[in-house]
Amino acid sequence: MPTILDIARHAGVSSATVSRVINSSGYVGEETRRKVEDAIEQLNYSPNKNAQHLRTGSTKNFGIISTQFNDTAVARINSFISTAYANGYTTTLFVTNGDKKREREAFDLLKSKQLDGIFLIYRANDWSVLEKYASFGPVVTLHNVDSEQIPSVFIDHYKGHRLALDYLWETGCRQILNLYGTPKGLNTHRRIDAYTDFCRDHQIDPHNPDLFIDTVTSEKVDDFIRWYESTEVKPDAVVTHSDSIAALVVSRLRRKGIRVPEDVSVIGFDNLDVSDVMDMTTIDYSIEEQGKNACRLLLQTLNQPVDELKPLSFKLIKRKTTL
Amino acid sequence: MPTILDIARHAGVSSATVSRVINSSGYVGEETRRKVEDAIEQLNYSPNKNAQHLRTGSTKNFGIISTQFNDTAVARINSFISTAYANGYTTTLFVTNGDKKREREAFDLLKSKQLDGIFLIYRANDWSVLEKYASFGPVVTLHNVDSEQIPSVFIDHYKGHRLALDYLWETGCRQILNLYGTPKGLNTHRRIDAYTDFCRDHQIDPHNPDLFIDTVTSEKVDDFIRWYESTEVKPDAVVTHSDSIAALVVSRLRRKGIRVPEDVSVIGFDNLDVSDVMDMTTIDYSIEEQGKNACRLLLQTLNQPVDELKPLSFKLIKRKTTL
Repeated sequence: MPTILDIARHAGVSSATVSRVINSSGYVGEETRRKVEDAIEQLNYSPNKNAQHLRTGSTKNFGIISTQFNDTAVARINSFISTAYANGYTTTLFVTNGDKKREREAFDLLKSKQLDGIFLIYRANDWSVLEKYASFGPVVTLHNVDSEQIPSVFIDHYKGHRLALDYLWETGCRQILNLYGTPKGLNTHRRIDAYTDFCRDHQIDPHNPDLFIDTVTSEKVDDFIRWYESTEVKPDAVVTHSDSIAALVVSRLRRKGIRVPEDVSVIGFDNLDVSDVMDMTTIDYSIEEQGKNACRLLLQTLNQPVDELKPLSFKLIKRKTTL
Repeated sequence: MPTILDIARHAGVSSATVSRVINSSGYVGEETRRKVEDAIEQLNYSPNKNAQHLRTGSTKNFGIISTQFNDTAVARINSFISTAYANGYTTTLFVTNGDKKREREAFDLLKSKQLDGIFLIYRANDWSVLEKYASFGPVVTLHNVDSEQIPSVFIDHYKGHRLALDYLWETGCRQILNLYGTPKGLNTHRRIDAYTDFCRDHQIDPHNPDLFIDTVTSEKVDDFIRWYESTEVKPDAVVTHSDSIAALVVSRLRRKGIRVPEDVSVIGFDNLDVSDVMDMTTIDYSIEEQGKNACRLLLQTLNQPVDELKPLSFKLIKRKTTL
């Protein structure tokens, strides 16, 4: 059976280069990589994977686990994948659809060292079940969890929502309506808290938070538009929980001839590409850095050289859908 | 060791229901599912996974393999995942970043029956390597490949691009400029073919296709905007290869005070959400059906009851960025 040295001789490169190709670690030029791969094929070299994993204790592969696959998850996944790639890691994404067994199976791969680390976006199992796995390899989560074993890149949306409300107040808006996301989400609760405190500080009557809670689809936005057209006391501003929803709101209002921001201001959340091309005011909260930080945390725990964590913060991006 | 029957008695449901929960197949109400899962935990039941896989020959898990993770890939992935889920399957996505070894490792899971089927979006290995795996389980691809073993959901972009050109001609545009995607892509070549034939049919001089080839980032769109401002003979229409790029073009033109469509028409491609909220004319080519068809093809091969394949076709969606 040929050895790494045989491959190196055949390809005319050093054995360190062959090792880098086999382990997908460090930089190897495209042409060199091809030479090594050709040599591997021609000599029919087959590294003993199990032995290899025991030796390096690494498969250079991270897992991302999520119950769903949606717009904001995608933005985070994207930046995580790029950071992992820049550091020599590939990524496997497990969409569990809330299936607890499937989630445990993915975590089992950490135990058997087929994954080097896991970024848990939306979980299905209880923390008590998942925490046990953290002893087998690093786990980072997006959830707000107080755990010694599992660090989090969660940030509290209270401040972001309050930033939007304060800015609208400054621009003269007094009838502010909130479109909230999923009722069971912590982010929704913290947004409602921010709105409640805002109203108390300005001594105004809050609207019922349930009015437009769970506004997460275009159908729900259509419901809001119908309500807007029929209501007597119209809001002069709408705060949303995502740029995708804000984009629908702006587009549907304008189709009805309602002017944004002259008749009503609209503010998004996330600072995704759609807010840029639609010139929408929004709240940036370093959603990409969040995905990068998750990856950096995993790499740090594995003692890999990596950039410092970047602080995550909220920033108002003023564009053209507010006054 | 407890049996499925013990779990069923403990949870007060039928053993068929327990089996459905364990195998994630068929519909089970949320409350019933929870009861069964609680019983599994309380009785410490652990189905022998290997025995189970041998028995059913199925893990109810599909793999998606892609070298990249980008906007249009995401739209397809999304509809694949939903269709898989509706049919009782979860999905694992392997982002290989072009790593051939990683891709082969993912295909090995088909061999070891840890995946029931694979949707190959963008490949890293040669077909000769990948075709061998098709005997171990169904593989469907997005690539244009003439293979007995591997069916494809590829569609030829020639017709779609021609549809856009013909429509612009009808609306009176005579100086049509094409922004093309990646130069090595087959889709780009077929778009150029469509433009060449279009010019021949109308006896007009084609512009050099290399003028704005590889227009795939916002920086490249900025280059185009600078060119547009400085050129003497301005185009009266711009055809793009994606809605994301068209959205940037429309937004950047308007920021410069150039009117769309009065000064210049812009047409997108894909019919993604961004074209709806920006009221952009675009070419729909059933990108969601493409993801669904990929999943349906896998399910058919596995003799699962499933909807018929839907024919994929190009359709012009007239909105407000053309005359």
